[in-house]
Amino acid sequence: MYSFKNDYSEGAHERILNALIKSNLEQTDGYGEDIYTEKAIELLKQKIGINNVDIHLLPGGTQTNLTAISAFLRPHEAVIAATTGHILVHETGAIEATGHKIISINGTCGKLTAEQIQSAVKSHTDEHMVKPKLVYISNPTEIGSIYSKSELESLSRVCKENNLFLYIDGARLGSALCSDENDIELYDLANYVDAFYIGGTKNGAFMGEALVICRDSLKEDFRYHIKQKGALLAKGRLLGIQFLELFRDDLYFDLAMHANKMAGLLKSAISRAGFTFLTHSPSNQIFPILPNELIEKLSEKYSFYVWETVDKQNSAIRLVTSWATKEDYVLAFIDDLFILNK
Amino acid sequence: MYSFKNDYSEGAHERILNALIKSNLEQTDGYGEDIYTEKAIELLKQKIGINNVDIHLLPGGTQTNLTAISAFLRPHEAVIAATTGHILVHETGAIEATGHKIISINGTCGKLTAEQIQSAVKSHTDEHMVKPKLVYISNPTEIGSIYSKSELESLSRVCKENNLFLYIDGARLGSALCSDENDIELYDLANYVDAFYIGGTKNGAFMGEALVICRDSLKEDFRYHIKQKGALLAKGRLLGIQFLELFRDDLYFDLAMHANKMAGLLKSAISRAGFTFLTHSPSNQIFPILPNELIEKLSEKYSFYVWETVDKQNSAIRLVTSWATKEDYVLAFIDDLFILNK
Amino acid sequence: MYSFKNDYSEGAHERILNALIKSNLEQTDGYGEDIYTEKAIELLKQKIGINNVDIHLLPGGTQTNLTAISAFLRPHEAVIAATTGHILVHETGAIEATGHKIISINGTCGKLTAEQIQSAVKSHTDEHMVKPKLVYISNPTEIGSIYSKSELESLSRVCKENNLFLYIDGARLGSALCSDENDIELYDLANYVDAFYIGGTKNGAFMGEALVICRDSLKEDFRYHIKQKGALLAKGRLLGIQFLELFRDDLYFDLAMHANKMAGLLKSAISRAGFTFLTHSPSNQIFPILPNELIEKLSEKYSFYVWETVDKQNSAIRLVTSWATKEDYVLAFIDDLFILNK
Amino acid sequence: MYSFKNDYSEGAHERILNALIKSNLEQTDGYGEDIYTEKAIELLKQKIGINNVDIHLLPGGTQTNLTAISAFLRPHEAVIAATTGHILVHETGAIEATGHKIISINGTCGKLTAEQIQSAVKSHTDEHMVKPKLVYISNPTEIGSIYSKSELESLSRVCKENNLFLYIDGARLGSALCSDENDIELYDLANYVDAFYIGGTKNGAFMGEALVICRDSLKEDFRYHIKQKGALLAKGRLLGIQFLELFRDDLYFDLAMHANKMAGLLKSAISRAGFTFLTHSPSNQIFPILPNELIEKLSEKYSFYVWETVDKQNSAIRLVTSWATKEDYVLAFIDDLFILNK
Repeated sequence: MYSFKNDYSEGAHERILNALIKSNLEQTDGYGEDIYTEKAIELLKQKIGINNVDIHLLPGGTQTNLTAISAFLRPHEAVIAATTGHILVHETGAIEATGHKIISINGTCGKLTAEQIQSAVKSHTDEHMVKPKLVYISNPTEIGSIYSKSELESLSRVCKENNLFLYIDGARLGSALCSDENDIELYDLANYVDAFYIGGTKNGAFMGEALVICRDSLKEDFRYHIKQKGALLAKGRLLGIQFLELFRDDLYFDLAMHANKMAGLLKSAISRAGFTFLTHSPSNQIFPILPNELIEKLSEKYSFYVWETVDKQNSAIRLVTSWATKEDYVLAFIDDLFILNK
Repeated sequence: MYSFKNDYSEGAHERILNALIKSNLEQTDGYGEDIYTEKAIELLKQKIGINNVDIHLLPGGTQTNLTAISAFLRPHEAVIAATTGHILVHETGAIEATGHKIISINGTCGKLTAEQIQSAVKSHTDEHMVKPKLVYISNPTEIGSIYSKSELESLSRVCKENNLFLYIDGARLGSALCSDENDIELYDLANYVDAFYIGGTKNGAFMGEALVICRDSLKEDFRYHIKQKGALLAKGRLLGIQFLELFRDDLYFDLAMHANKMAGLLKSAISRAGFTFLTHSPSNQIFPILPNELIEKLSEKYSFYVWETVDKQNSAIRLVTSWATKEDYVLAFIDDLFILNK
Repeated sequence: MYSFKNDYSEGAHERILNALIKSNLEQTDGYGEDIYTEKAIELLKQKIGINNVDIHLLPGGTQTNLTAISAFLRPHEAVIAATTGHILVHETGAIEATGHKIISINGTCGKLTAEQIQSAVKSHTDEHMVKPKLVYISNPTEIGSIYSKSELESLSRVCKENNLFLYIDGARLGSALCSDENDIELYDLANYVDAFYIGGTKNGAFMGEALVICRDSLKEDFRYHIKQKGALLAKGRLLGIQFLELFRDDLYFDLAMHANKMAGLLKSAISRAGFTFLTHSPSNQIFPILPNELIEKLSEKYSFYVWETVDKQNSAIRLVTSWATKEDYVLAFIDDLFILNK
Repeated sequence: MYSFKNDYSEGAHERILNALIKSNLEQTDGYGEDIYTEKAIELLKQKIGINNVDIHLLPGGTQTNLTAISAFLRPHEAVIAATTGHILVHETGAIEATGHKIISINGTCGKLTAEQIQSAVKSHTDEHMVKPKLVYISNPTEIGSIYSKSELESLSRVCKENNLFLYIDGARLGSALCSDENDIELYDLANYVDAFYIGGTKNGAFMGEALVICRDSLKEDFRYHIKQKGALLAKGRLLGIQFLELFRDDLYFDLAMHANKMAGLLKSAISRAGFTFLTHSPSNQIFPILPNELIEKLSEKYSFYVWETVDKQNSAIRLVTSWATKEDYVLAFIDDLFILNK
């Protein structure tokens, strides 16, 4: 049984393991004040191309979202997010648990537009309602789509005009940035948004997300929030070592490219087999619509999520590839698809 | 410069690294639903000797404290803790951030007594005050002391009588259980308290704490809380693999014994040199009182915290040993102590 | 300029003022432990016809909602409400500020159905999402509709089957219970729901809502929550005296009937004039759809809210009547409507 | 049985009742946007003598404290308060429920000194601890003492130097300002502190506290917080009318002076009778130390709190006077004291 269920089924890339072994018995300071974390942060700043950002390494995505958003907002301020946004449904109310409402918007293919944001702001008129203050987007989105540079620029503009923070959940940022259709660079992110994170957990690390805070007013005292929310690891080096290795020579991007390539193989084969997709996805998650019978047969050899009922005969499934996905299994899946579909 | 600053200066025990390597490319389910976590939990139940407990693996200590305590309490309920308690000062208000007051008590050598708890309960008389509901203790305490079985039994009794939960922060539990002066076993903990955790981070793991919930009424829906607080790692196996290795053949206790032995060497040498200690500590943290001049000299070769000013000439320092502390450096420290003290 | 903007434009009913005067210099205990509050609670229990309920008097509606809901729920539990629900948009995120998500459902005419609730529960499958636990409805709803006994019974059943609490926001409960179309009594409420409140502020009192807790498990320690949320008035008698006067001889229902009668006059006249309504409303809020030109003219003599744009020429306005609405002004409005509409 | 238990045993001053009657059937806007609230705020600004302050009327003291403090602080910031501070023990953890720790300091006679604050700040060194940000004092304190202008000035200075907000709980502010020993005026308060409130509930109103926000950065969006915490009364005029009446011609100060005078009568008689006091109190709460036997006899005719056991034979009691305290009963108490003490 080979799994296409998600991009966190395996451990970490071998080079990360080696880096952990090599550094293992060195003594370092705790809580992210070690030399590895320091170096990783410097390296990330170079890769971004902007020095005037603050970078913090946190263990996981929900943790990063809740720590950042609760640090950035005052009690009456709210988040705007697409109905498909991860924080809206799949984080057990983590944001609300810190006291903040999430205003949900029916996005377009998982993405928000400037018009939608403007309209949400307009409908919140006075102190009897929350005050929208932060726009949360994911890139790639939870359904595989990615933002273009011009879309991002237009979100950035509407946010500035309305005094909103723009925040990107980058759990799978590598896949977005390495997509064939992408025209955004790390530099653009730091330029257009107030904060974003570069996801490590789903792209080769055991765990770890690098939160980049771009707006000066959001930087102050951030480590207090990390500690208060339980996200300050005693052995913070564990995160530093991993990010250092991932970005030392662009391993991070190589891994994301592999994941995208594997998804691409699946996608074109599934198209060739005559099937369509629930969403246009140029990243490492694809959502083919297949006959239920075929799904059942495939699920005897491969594991994946059945995402959504499409009609009586067909459902959309989710196939996720990763840095660790083996091409052999992708090809086998394709073969099986054609064989079982007869 | 050798560090006695804390017990999280190094990486993880070699065997843990090997276990991570060995399992690295296996595909497992995420979020702690993998086979390693499952096995680790079964193993821990065996070691405890009670099957009717729920065990969850969380990344760190503050995270575990805040997740457990906020899950266990209703909004008006409060925690009782000693003034030296970790949650009271050194977790950036993590418990208060979840809405709960901590009532501080001047403990005795870092420990709470049944009388102190009874008196705290009595002084909270009605709905104009919070309602004390959970007693937080650490074993060993933050200043190195440990609880005896009879002390624990008496705390347990006063808690039952007053309808309070008893919770143990076991960040360094290994060191307590392996202390020469200890008469408590894991079984006793599960018997006497409502929840406790077995700390991995400070005893050989990269990270990880095993929370043991003993009282039935506290078990329900606990995974929701872990997720909401950002403590549910996507690659939960990382915790499972480590605890499995630590407890497979009692490596956990061997490591704690080593740490205690190293602390014992330091302690008896320091005594021989004619110095006294701030507290009686039979665990892996000791607090010798040394002349400031000597402290200055020692700090040129060893790093450690200066804990407290004792008088004009003397201060207490904190020396912490761990699973990774090298005997050679301990002996070198002892030699230097005698030489520099002349 | 006469106002139909809301039902809290005037002070309190004359009899309440007299009761305040009469009792003014008596000395009583504070914080709701006075004889008036005690008597008011006893009287309310008689009116409800069930003795086994706990009743607390709180100053306002948002206050009551947030105090009750945060007391009833554990941190991971969520509220289900209609998109028109007051707590969802018009209380500045008060519920989220206590840590709980509100799951919004597109209700039917402002009301929830058993099917909608069942479906919301089904879509929350595991610990990665919040756990629906309390169903919030308003009676009458925010758009004037009311629940029938059989609707309430069916909501109660679906809640019991799914282990959900059913809670009614009764800010305008008097108007619902005194509606021509109503077949629910106070007794039914206490029978079918877990908690509800009887609104005083919008029906003759200066302020005050009587929260009735019917389910035993929700009663414990409730006064702690009132105090913690700042809702325990030092001079609690102020609430007791008002509720005692309102229910001593059914003044409360007389006042609600007056409000409904005034709304009925407006409604039938508006119908006679050939206009329709946005919603079917048998309570004290009505939403006629009028030509914009007519709205403009009317707004020179009467104040009211323009609720919603219906099409280019027409909008819905909201007219609210109350215990204090003067029939003369209602008749004048009707006259003007016919005159100005020519 | 005459009560000296507290200063909220009676209703409201007669003039307030009259003002409520007179305005009763006028229609006004809701939520504090009425003409009475507007006028009351303007009047208060005149009395303070500074126009550049924001004033909000809230229903009660705990409500005001929790709304203001949670609006002013970021999540990692904490309050410094004396151990006798009302928020520390007697508000059921209301501040912690909004997420903030209160750092308690052993004050001096219920008051804080600049040195104590400086020392609390110094002991909070880094992100592993909360960040002290707001100093909470009460004037008069909970044990009757009052701050002098020079004490206040020195607190103000230490707060400015350490970037702390200074906040005064003025539940009984009238009594402090009208004390024989007072040298502070409303103007000084607005000058020296960042926010304070003028208590109405305990000085002639049914309820109501006027929060004065002096620091510009704390003013923004404050009404959102009032609404979110449930403190925005629909009939906000109820507060406006009362404060307008209290300050129209200094009734507020007349009432406070009466309360102080009554306390003064008691105090000097008790002194004459040879008894001492637990604290030096120049305000409307006094704490005489009396023989237990005498206390028992007095409690047959008068109600009051027994505050503290002093020794085997003696206890301190609390006697509170108010705007409504009748001189006849004070004189009767004094007579009885002398008679029963024989």
